Amino acid sequence: MGELVFVGLGLHDETGISLKGLEEVKSAENVFIEIYTSILPNFSISRFEGISGKKLRIVSRKELEDENGEAVLKEAEKGKAVLLVPGDPLIATTHVALRLEAEKRGIKTRIVHGSSIVSAAMGLSGLHNYKFGKSVTIPFSENLSETPYLVIGENLRRGLHTLCLLDINVEERRFLSIKEALEMLLNVEAERKNGTITIERLAVGIARAGSPNPKVKADFVKELLRYDFGEPPYTLIFPGKLHFMEAEALIAFAGAPLIVRKMVQ
Amino acid sequence: MGELVFVGLGLHDETGISLKGLEEVKSAENVFIEIYTSILPNFSISRFEGISGKKLRIVSRKELEDENGEAVLKEAEKGKAVLLVPGDPLIATTHVALRLEAEKRGIKTRIVHGSSIVSAAMGLSGLHNYKFGKSVTIPFSENLSETPYLVIGENLRRGLHTLCLLDINVEERRFLSIKEALEMLLNVEAERKNGTITIERLAVGIARAGSPNPKVKADFVKELLRYDFGEPPYTLIFPGKLHFMEAEALIAFAGAPLIVRKMVQ
Repeated sequence: MGELVFVGLGLHDETGISLKGLEEVKSAENVFIEIYTSILPNFSISRFEGISGKKLRIVSRKELEDENGEAVLKEAEKGKAVLLVPGDPLIATTHVALRLEAEKRGIKTRIVHGSSIVSAAMGLSGLHNYKFGKSVTIPFSENLSETPYLVIGENLRRGLHTLCLLDINVEERRFLSIKEALEMLLNVEAERKNGTITIERLAVGIARAGSPNPKVKADFVKELLRYDFGEPPYTLIFPGKLHFMEAEALIAFAGAPLIVRKMVQ
Repeated sequence: MGELVFVGLGLHDETGISLKGLEEVKSAENVFIEIYTSILPNFSISRFEGISGKKLRIVSRKELEDENGEAVLKEAEKGKAVLLVPGDPLIATTHVALRLEAEKRGIKTRIVHGSSIVSAAMGLSGLHNYKFGKSVTIPFSENLSETPYLVIGENLRRGLHTLCLLDINVEERRFLSIKEALEMLLNVEAERKNGTITIERLAVGIARAGSPNPKVKADFVKELLRYDFGEPPYTLIFPGKLHFMEAEALIAFAGAPLIVRKMVQ
């Protein structure tokens, strides 16, 4: 019987995969890779092919979403197929849909996990993971949405941190910048006037999580608006109530202004 | 100048580390490992030493917490030291404290991420990550706490899922079981009577995330109470509002009863 193994590539480049993930690739008959649900800025297909000794076949959004991953499923029905995905598999809904279709066809499925921006952002910021509320994606401005603003506000009212993933379009190499995300939130603030996102609000911007040189900067929105985070991808965190050790972490690891100590509650 | 690199071991065994994490180990002068903040059930020190060609030094809770990681910091001041940690580094507060102390002493610190139960549990259950609210740890019964019950209730009122990490004591090889966790929550329910955790509440139990044979079972509390999840570690999820694809995922990947389809909102 066939088998489809979802293998997480982790973050940033081709060395983010786990040892067990690489073994799955080496023992697969067919290896597919999906690189549009998220971005691995420094991932090289040829370097990965060199490491694994396997040829990779890129599956496009069209193949996975419009054609329900037929290309992948056909191979998985015959033998062992691996689908390489950025980060940790099945965080993206597309993968869940594909796994459902595979199970429907009697194809065994397994997951080999990889590191994810969800926990990486918590570790990089030093903010406590159990104090994060609902997370949210901030879309490109053409799909202006009030949801992120409302989610951040709801979390703040409970003293919780909010992890904001910034929208990307890998095919068009477009990445919502931290500046654009903050401006969108300030625009919603101008309408809603809840005081959720003001230029005095503390936020943490993260660029290139998982790379050798991630940029993690905590400051007030008015400062982050002009801060240069360098290359994508980007993540944004709005801290809620700060524990003293969280404040110290933001100062030490994210260059937060010392006044953050006064915000400890 | 010295350097301390926190390297995530990911989940379950010695092959959960990333390729870049292994490279950091190979190029380190001193390699420490901390295996009490979380459990890697099938991790073998000697197998890892074989893979990496490095001798590992285990740091105890006492060394890290009572002695502020002095043993690790002394080596990190001299040259490159790696601290191997289960899952993704700096999710545990202990690591944040150590990193703060290292930075205070002028030791450069970096993080090499690993897969974490936080995202693994989302992927294994097929529940959407942006619908998870605040997460919580359910402690051993001797430290009876109402917090988990209240957190789950608050998330449920907003239609959000709750990830519950179950307490462990690696030194004593004690693991809070899913049955014990559910009984504790039912005891709080008997006092509080909010209707948050009843025997009719849907929950998802996960055992051995990241292993080749994780057990993922979705059912009502009264059924999960007598379900055999096998070996630890364990995680528990209380789903909030279900999207239809989440319901299908729970049925297909977690053996949820078909009636879950009627719970889609």
